[in-house]
Amino acid sequence: MRKICVVITARPSYSRVRSLLHAIREHPGLDLQIVVAASALLSRYGSTVKTIEEEGFHVDRSVYTIMEGENLLTSAKSTGIGLSELATAFYDLAPDVVVTVADRFETIATAIAASYMNIPLAHIQGGEVTGSIDEKVRHAVTKLADMHFVATKNAAERVIKMGERPDTVFTTGCPSIDVVQAALASGSSGFDVFERYTGVGPVFDLSNGYIVAIQHPVTTEYREARLHIEQTLNAITKLEHPTLWFWPNVDAGADGTSTGIRSFREIHAPQNIHFFKSMSPEDFIRTLDKSDCIVGNSSVGIRECAYMGIPAVNIGSRQAGRDRGQNVVDCNYDCDNIAAAISAQVSHGRLDPDHVYGDVGAGTRIASLLATVALSIEKRLTY
Amino acid sequence: MRKICVVITARPSYSRVRSLLHAIREHPGLDLQIVVAASALLSRYGSTVKTIEEEGFHVDRSVYTIMEGENLLTSAKSTGIGLSELATAFYDLAPDVVVTVADRFETIATAIAASYMNIPLAHIQGGEVTGSIDEKVRHAVTKLADMHFVATKNAAERVIKMGERPDTVFTTGCPSIDVVQAALASGSSGFDVFERYTGVGPVFDLSNGYIVAIQHPVTTEYREARLHIEQTLNAITKLEHPTLWFWPNVDAGADGTSTGIRSFREIHAPQNIHFFKSMSPEDFIRTLDKSDCIVGNSSVGIRECAYMGIPAVNIGSRQAGRDRGQNVVDCNYDCDNIAAAISAQVSHGRLDPDHVYGDVGAGTRIASLLATVALSIEKRLTY
Amino acid sequence: MRKICVVITARPSYSRVRSLLHAIREHPGLDLQIVVAASALLSRYGSTVKTIEEEGFHVDRSVYTIMEGENLLTSAKSTGIGLSELATAFYDLAPDVVVTVADRFETIATAIAASYMNIPLAHIQGGEVTGSIDEKVRHAVTKLADMHFVATKNAAERVIKMGERPDTVFTTGCPSIDVVQAALASGSSGFDVFERYTGVGPVFDLSNGYIVAIQHPVTTEYREARLHIEQTLNAITKLEHPTLWFWPNVDAGADGTSTGIRSFREIHAPQNIHFFKSMSPEDFIRTLDKSDCIVGNSSVGIRECAYMGIPAVNIGSRQAGRDRGQNVVDCNYDCDNIAAAISAQVSHGRLDPDHVYGDVGAGTRIASLLATVALSIEKRLTY
Amino acid sequence: MRKICVVITARPSYSRVRSLLHAIREHPGLDLQIVVAASALLSRYGSTVKTIEEEGFHVDRSVYTIMEGENLLTSAKSTGIGLSELATAFYDLAPDVVVTVADRFETIATAIAASYMNIPLAHIQGGEVTGSIDEKVRHAVTKLADMHFVATKNAAERVIKMGERPDTVFTTGCPSIDVVQAALASGSSGFDVFERYTGVGPVFDLSNGYIVAIQHPVTTEYREARLHIEQTLNAITKLEHPTLWFWPNVDAGADGTSTGIRSFREIHAPQNIHFFKSMSPEDFIRTLDKSDCIVGNSSVGIRECAYMGIPAVNIGSRQAGRDRGQNVVDCNYDCDNIAAAISAQVSHGRLDPDHVYGDVGAGTRIASLLATVALSIEKRLTY
Repeated sequence: MRKICVVITARPSYSRVRSLLHAIREHPGLDLQIVVAASALLSRYGSTVKTIEEEGFHVDRSVYTIMEGENLLTSAKSTGIGLSELATAFYDLAPDVVVTVADRFETIATAIAASYMNIPLAHIQGGEVTGSIDEKVRHAVTKLADMHFVATKNAAERVIKMGERPDTVFTTGCPSIDVVQAALASGSSGFDVFERYTGVGPVFDLSNGYIVAIQHPVTTEYREARLHIEQTLNAITKLEHPTLWFWPNVDAGADGTSTGIRSFREIHAPQNIHFFKSMSPEDFIRTLDKSDCIVGNSSVGIRECAYMGIPAVNIGSRQAGRDRGQNVVDCNYDCDNIAAAISAQVSHGRLDPDHVYGDVGAGTRIASLLATVALSIEKRLTY
Repeated sequence: MRKICVVITARPSYSRVRSLLHAIREHPGLDLQIVVAASALLSRYGSTVKTIEEEGFHVDRSVYTIMEGENLLTSAKSTGIGLSELATAFYDLAPDVVVTVADRFETIATAIAASYMNIPLAHIQGGEVTGSIDEKVRHAVTKLADMHFVATKNAAERVIKMGERPDTVFTTGCPSIDVVQAALASGSSGFDVFERYTGVGPVFDLSNGYIVAIQHPVTTEYREARLHIEQTLNAITKLEHPTLWFWPNVDAGADGTSTGIRSFREIHAPQNIHFFKSMSPEDFIRTLDKSDCIVGNSSVGIRECAYMGIPAVNIGSRQAGRDRGQNVVDCNYDCDNIAAAISAQVSHGRLDPDHVYGDVGAGTRIASLLATVALSIEKRLTY
Repeated sequence: MRKICVVITARPSYSRVRSLLHAIREHPGLDLQIVVAASALLSRYGSTVKTIEEEGFHVDRSVYTIMEGENLLTSAKSTGIGLSELATAFYDLAPDVVVTVADRFETIATAIAASYMNIPLAHIQGGEVTGSIDEKVRHAVTKLADMHFVATKNAAERVIKMGERPDTVFTTGCPSIDVVQAALASGSSGFDVFERYTGVGPVFDLSNGYIVAIQHPVTTEYREARLHIEQTLNAITKLEHPTLWFWPNVDAGADGTSTGIRSFREIHAPQNIHFFKSMSPEDFIRTLDKSDCIVGNSSVGIRECAYMGIPAVNIGSRQAGRDRGQNVVDCNYDCDNIAAAISAQVSHGRLDPDHVYGDVGAGTRIASLLATVALSIEKRLTY
Repeated sequence: MRKICVVITARPSYSRVRSLLHAIREHPGLDLQIVVAASALLSRYGSTVKTIEEEGFHVDRSVYTIMEGENLLTSAKSTGIGLSELATAFYDLAPDVVVTVADRFETIATAIAASYMNIPLAHIQGGEVTGSIDEKVRHAVTKLADMHFVATKNAAERVIKMGERPDTVFTTGCPSIDVVQAALASGSSGFDVFERYTGVGPVFDLSNGYIVAIQHPVTTEYREARLHIEQTLNAITKLEHPTLWFWPNVDAGADGTSTGIRSFREIHAPQNIHFFKSMSPEDFIRTLDKSDCIVGNSSVGIRECAYMGIPAVNIGSRQAGRDRGQNVVDCNYDCDNIAAAISAQVSHGRLDPDHVYGDVGAGTRIASLLATVALSIEKRLTY
């Protein structure tokens, strides 16, 4: 029995590995350990930990790591605290493999704690290219990781080019696609978003389509966070199309973004925007499934929406360099350009699925590999 | 005036960047900030901070980070604490560039603190290949760094292959070669090692040659540290050749290595070994310059000794993969093999210099570049 | 020149020592150092640090310490982080005396850091008696402190009874009274609270009097925080008297209190309550000065309002045991009782000043003592 | 079943509560949890954790807290780290009562973590009076504690005078007396101290009596630690009486004390002193039982030796103010005075037992009370 410890630090990471958690739990050769940390524990980011428990998973450790302040200093300090605290959790749980997901700033704490404690580290979603600090974090985690479960062929090639041994790189596809399939399979009919997720703002008719908006601050553009969010808010307000807006994750600059949203609401009271803190991954997919377009800079627009064929207006630098399906139109931080791009995307309607991020089954594939691959903590550049 | 903050976390790192510190301080466009952290502050690793101040440098911040315990858990925790504490130092000092050196476990704390605080990060000695956790740390730091000052052409090629932009990679040579030249130029005559550095153990005649030994624990071979050190101690004892032995740095496993040495001394009281805690970089080079051979797993044997032509017996996996000059003979953890390799190296005597790690002048070259290159914190894989 | 380092961790602490900061700065024998920490740095508690700088003080160190989560675990962890970080600040600033104020949970971090670093510690507002964790913190700080500047004769007697040497206990009065006097002296006419401090909620006429409400969570009644706040919200809503409500400080349980307020607002949209995050100390006093009554559990109702003669309805256990003037009526967590108590207090109107917490001049008196008393870090129980 | 969590942070604390651990474990209404932290985990302080496990106890959590540096800054930081880490341990273990022992600097971390997390705190050995930072720590812990198990009547009176409710103060005697009795009862014959505990230094004949020496640094006399230890070392060397010397605990200044001892050994190679790192509590008592005199500043000389009738020479300020039996002679830091005091004590020989620190049975008495007293976290000064 290999003990597989998955560390979940934020709502989207949970969403991304949900099918993997199921597959690990059901695998006869694997023993699942879940560590929930960082913003996934916090009520103002939607208490992801509660969702995880409600969906039937046992949380082995809750690790508080976020230092308040939401600036660059506290981001660094939170990572240091996370590293120190996760080390304690790994010491107590003694896993055979630690799994870390994607590229949020705090994931490097997981990667260092595991690798410094000689625990083999598996990384999900390496080899992608984006802007911002995520880019540095993602590739640094690749260099600390012993196994790479990547989403696309391009990603696999990049990880190998970076000097990782090809036999440690597995193109499994992205487990987030499993969530899409599961959510849509389990039925989306008859669910009223305003009733199930209170949120704040006016309630309106969604039967003629709507936009989903979600925009995170970009750490390297920290000071402009508020200006950037206002461009998008203005564009959406101007369009007068019903919009469901989702709150950003914790990040340096969340203050600018959050303050921008709050202040815009107080002053302009936009009649076509309703704001939500969070949603179960399944309901979020179902909500996307009926939408006209996703707007902002979430990777969901790039990844899940490619598979679903939902048009996306991707704003700014956060997803720059990431592989794109045909559903994505890029746009700078400009109110008019954003509005025009949304209009164009809404007008042509839904697209064919694009398998750029793989097909369903990634969760099961990764679990299988975790049960069988040889574990090692020694590696060396291949050149 | 660019403020350049150099973080020094251990005795060998100081030795390595000493000429760079001088060059930065003397450069009209640069303002030198020095942060001393980790084992460089501790008396049981030779109080490197005192040496730094005695050599005329101003230490801007002393940052304690090492948690006692000397196991893998405390290594991880020390790194977390270091990250959190260095972030405070950078916040107060507000440097334009942070410089981190090589690949010790705690250097990743410097790299993360700087990159998360949007401070351009320069890395010295990336692109090399070795064994152990250093390998992971070094390349992870490369992925976090914005500028790379590498020692060899091979190293430059590797950093570029890893996806770094070629215009951010500079083959400057290794500033440790400057230390060699400076030390030898300033004269090595008339210095009695036993008098200047007390140490412990018998005093003996060095006029017929001697061995220098220095062996660090390897974090991924943590449990075997004591067995490994005993092989070397036995080999040296058997050879009966006078030997100056230098104490290892702090590391997970220092316990095994240190305990092994202490216990061997108590039981066997070897008559041909004298133990030292530390030495000024210059005196260390002068001591090497008159030696027959260096034994152990220090990178000095690979790097400085290549330039000096001093034969080296390199033991075990710690330096595996690193570019070698002709002065190096590799050897496994086996008493007899070690003894045989030393005998062979001692018998043929000193070799011609090998410039595999560059020529003198690296300190000045790096300072020049720090003053002139465009600073950026944005980067992306080149493929 | 004695360097006096005052540590400010929250908005009310700043308010309390403002006159002392002025007095230290103006004293020829004293050099003022200000460390701002904990919630005083955070925007969601009103960015006290900005107020401090706007009022002309130089902040020597900003020390982030609050770990997100707002539960008992994160309170403890924040205190540990605060202790570790404040130690760094004291190490760098090397003060001759550290001054800590009152009894908030994080103040013990200041007290330990100073006393463990052999820096004489002065404590302001020891010897009082209240409920909750503050009671333990306050007296523990007394046992760590070397000088005690207390507000009342009763407080002085209690500190001496606890075994402190009488010559280290000074009944200086409370510097918060200075703030009252200064605020009222500098004129309160013509200031529109809604205009100057936006806040949220309806705007209403204040010319016929109003209530000021401020209620903090009580850490030992952590789980009931939401129920408790709802009783007060209901009472005030029922009374229909205009009310200015001030947001609570960060504390374990702030979540219950804050969530309770937010949720009540969304559901009931009370027409007679306007909510504010913070206010300058002076404007807060001016606002109190024109109010009919203060409601909740803030010490302002007990302390400043005694001097001002403003009726106070004190709810629950938070201020239990504290010396009271005749302006205070106590009340349990019961909507009807709260409403009745408010009505009674409003009906009889303003009272005569009560000097139970001393007269003006405490700031100057404390500064004088800081300049002249013999400094020592050795003490022993007097019995 | 009440879960009782005992936190052990150093060798002498373990020794002191050993009988209590047995009594808790055997009590049908109690469930024992053991947290080992700080120097009790470290090999250079004798790996107390190993002793605890060898003696059959299960260690629930190992909590590393000591930051290297051994100065005042790292003492404060270690306490902050300890607080943060112990909070995690208490969160996971969810005890009904936390027990903290005596007054070492790190015990305040236990006290704060428990009290901030609303866990009732029991303090053993409050109410005593000594010098140094311990004095501040001990009484601060009393103010945080909810139950007080004190050793002497005088101690009980002092705790009550400090304002603690008399019904929370229990004069149980000191559980260290139980260790004495158990150790002597289980037989001390035929045990060779040099064989069982290797140590360093010459081996000599103990059959004509010997001295036991143990001297800790005093944190408030930090800079003088080395001078102080040298006086004692000189006195003992001069007397030429066989001496077993025990290494000090970790503390700010341990460096001075430890360096002083190491350096004295290298230079003077005293022929009548053998040095030990640690010893099981039982063997330590048996070793004391056959000794002529204990010398230094350990509380063992005051406490256990009173009960045993072993003469003690108590040096300096560390135990100042503590209740003394007739076995103690006090002495300042002066070589000649120390030597004279030892000679006088050795010459008159063993004394009658003195029950100033209570009789046997404290462990059982405390366990009984832990099982039955009403638990509360609310308290208030009694005056």
